[in-house]
Amino acid sequence: MALIVQKFGGTSVGTVDRIENVAERIGKFRARGDDIIVVVSAMSGETNRLVALAQSINEKPDAREYDVLLSTGEQVTIALLSMALNKRDIAARSYTGSQVHILTDSAHNKARILDIEEKNIRFDLQKGRVIVVAGFQGVDESGNITTLGRGGSDTTAVALAAALKADECQIYTDVDGVYTTDPRVVPEARRLDKITFEEMLEMASLGSKVLQIRAVEFAGKYNVPLRVLSSFDEPNFTDDGANGTLITFEDKNEENEMEQALISGIAFNRDEAKLTMLGVPDKPGVAHNILGPIGDSNIEIDMIIQNIGADGTTDFTFTVHRNDYSTAKDILHKIAGELGAREVVGDDKIVKISLVGVGMRSHAGIASTMFKALADEGININMIATSEIKISVVVDEKYLELGVRTLHSAFGLEQAS
Amino acid sequence: MALIVQKFGGTSVGTVDRIENVAERIGKFRARGDDIIVVVSAMSGETNRLVALAQSINEKPDAREYDVLLSTGEQVTIALLSMALNKRDIAARSYTGSQVHILTDSAHNKARILDIEEKNIRFDLQKGRVIVVAGFQGVDESGNITTLGRGGSDTTAVALAAALKADECQIYTDVDGVYTTDPRVVPEARRLDKITFEEMLEMASLGSKVLQIRAVEFAGKYNVPLRVLSSFDEPNFTDDGANGTLITFEDKNEENEMEQALISGIAFNRDEAKLTMLGVPDKPGVAHNILGPIGDSNIEIDMIIQNIGADGTTDFTFTVHRNDYSTAKDILHKIAGELGAREVVGDDKIVKISLVGVGMRSHAGIASTMFKALADEGININMIATSEIKISVVVDEKYLELGVRTLHSAFGLEQAS
Repeated sequence: MALIVQKFGGTSVGTVDRIENVAERIGKFRARGDDIIVVVSAMSGETNRLVALAQSINEKPDAREYDVLLSTGEQVTIALLSMALNKRDIAARSYTGSQVHILTDSAHNKARILDIEEKNIRFDLQKGRVIVVAGFQGVDESGNITTLGRGGSDTTAVALAAALKADECQIYTDVDGVYTTDPRVVPEARRLDKITFEEMLEMASLGSKVLQIRAVEFAGKYNVPLRVLSSFDEPNFTDDGANGTLITFEDKNEENEMEQALISGIAFNRDEAKLTMLGVPDKPGVAHNILGPIGDSNIEIDMIIQNIGADGTTDFTFTVHRNDYSTAKDILHKIAGELGAREVVGDDKIVKISLVGVGMRSHAGIASTMFKALADEGININMIATSEIKISVVVDEKYLELGVRTLHSAFGLEQAS
Repeated sequence: MALIVQKFGGTSVGTVDRIENVAERIGKFRARGDDIIVVVSAMSGETNRLVALAQSINEKPDAREYDVLLSTGEQVTIALLSMALNKRDIAARSYTGSQVHILTDSAHNKARILDIEEKNIRFDLQKGRVIVVAGFQGVDESGNITTLGRGGSDTTAVALAAALKADECQIYTDVDGVYTTDPRVVPEARRLDKITFEEMLEMASLGSKVLQIRAVEFAGKYNVPLRVLSSFDEPNFTDDGANGTLITFEDKNEENEMEQALISGIAFNRDEAKLTMLGVPDKPGVAHNILGPIGDSNIEIDMIIQNIGADGTTDFTFTVHRNDYSTAKDILHKIAGELGAREVVGDDKIVKISLVGVGMRSHAGIASTMFKALADEGININMIATSEIKISVVVDEKYLELGVRTLHSAFGLEQAS
């Protein structure tokens, strides 16, 4: 007997047959006595269809109406899933974001959840009903329909779990958990039974697509136990570790099994591009003078490195999303003269590979093992950045697969720790 | 300067291009200074798509969830039309039935409108906004989404017009008005500039598909001036009578131009079937004994005729929808024994043709002209039924076209009165 929030993404509810499968799965949890709140996305393809309709009218459709349009996608799914549940004599009720009263701010297309009304949900749970909630959407104070942005259904699920103090928030996807790295790159990649919230955050923000970073942040803020698992596997009610990946909130100082693993996984990002301004006279404020105009153009900056040369000048390097490469380069060329810089160079054929692990904190030598393994394969490192629980390197694009495989093997990630 | 409610059906908003056309049309009314409330249906095909989805899960999906599902159809249209209007700098705001607060009872799939909140609409109108409302849907007291049943968008439009005391409710369709009869049967059929509410009600209930009978009843109840016109014609702001068909509410006793027309139109219905119980012992309650079991099976009865024979028995005849013919016949066979009837006979190859006109009230001779015209063509009349403003005859199916054409010509309907 537990209160579980289950979220099913677009692929998991992509056809009527899959919706029926989801209903079957929910039935098994109900049979066990669990209370279930389900959050669903639009059927896969539906959101794209609606976006295409909007854009055939206006490439930049107004934000309020865009939300009215997109929110219909999830509304279709909640109705169909509730029908499939009721057909099985599993009492169910659908709720749109507005009906369950997921109150958001008025930032259409990227609204933030402010509050969730608990009362009606509790009432329905007491009546023994499965509650089927449309993900991704809410309502503002004036009654306008809002959406949370792509991937917002994960956030809806976590927010509901937080509001109702659910025992677990299960995110069902088309993969069966979080892996040490992308199995398409490293076939030996291993599913993690557990990963800490902080590691997951690094993995998510470093390009692992399993969970939306916003949902992970939300889960972290409200200490919601989050589990990633596959909607295609049979539910497993034993505790044998075959239940996807649990994202845990173990205290940092607690001595526990998590401490065993030095490195939890390897994330990578293919969308990086690097820009360098060479020979900038080294004066206070130089970083701001360079990055200010980039930020003003709404270009997000990832890694930043500054080396001070012997001649009183500095080389300033940073990475941006590959889509922003040429715009950023144009900006640098424009300001290079004012700043008295020697040259602007760039490279959009680079990738970032990152080792992630809380174990890193208490173990020296991770970095040197990493650099040696890469060197042994002749992979040159362009940039290095570190945080408390990750080390990222930028390498040439062509070394991505080799680099990830080399590190995966060097840290023995194919074996359970 | 007028307040106009405009309703566009599924065909009129069936593609993005047509939605753009509707936006253009609204723009012309706005340019004239009119305040506009628009009611739209789902894009043609969309409701059928959603129904098919539901039925692939459950042939009889639960009513509450069915409404959640179907209501997304109109929600898509209101968003797209509002985008198209805003693109043209015509300030617009979409509202679902729930948002504009069309309060209904809780009879899912066939809810009745109880109330409409006027305040928010008035506020938006004062701000100079076009209000785009999803037809066909509402919300019950508990916040559940309801739908009004097929054709309910007409009712939404009329209800809004009634609540806001609009100057006119314009129903845009794929035909340019109400005709003396179906032009596919009689090419000489003529569009009526005006028709009375009572005539329209008879035309609608007798099989003319232009307007939903419920919307006409609603308009009658609240004296809403209703106009049927084509969404494919250019708007006509003159008063030269080329603006579709106006449904008027002239007082019966008022002497006016309406009195000139004896007959306004000819309606017909191809879906009739006839059943007769022969030689029923004529006792009080015989009608109820026969029709009671039919009604209990949710079969609607249209015409009823009872002839009393010389031998103390009676022949009892009635018509039903052709789809109910065999069920009704089975019921009659079952009860014939109890009632001591001689025989049950039936015919599902019949049609009903009706003359409709308020002028009929004050003019004798309409019936005899009708019967003579049919007799001259050798058309045998099976049944006759009359009301204050209509005469209906049942004839063999094969005479439908001939009968309608004959009557159209006999009453000179091809010429403007």
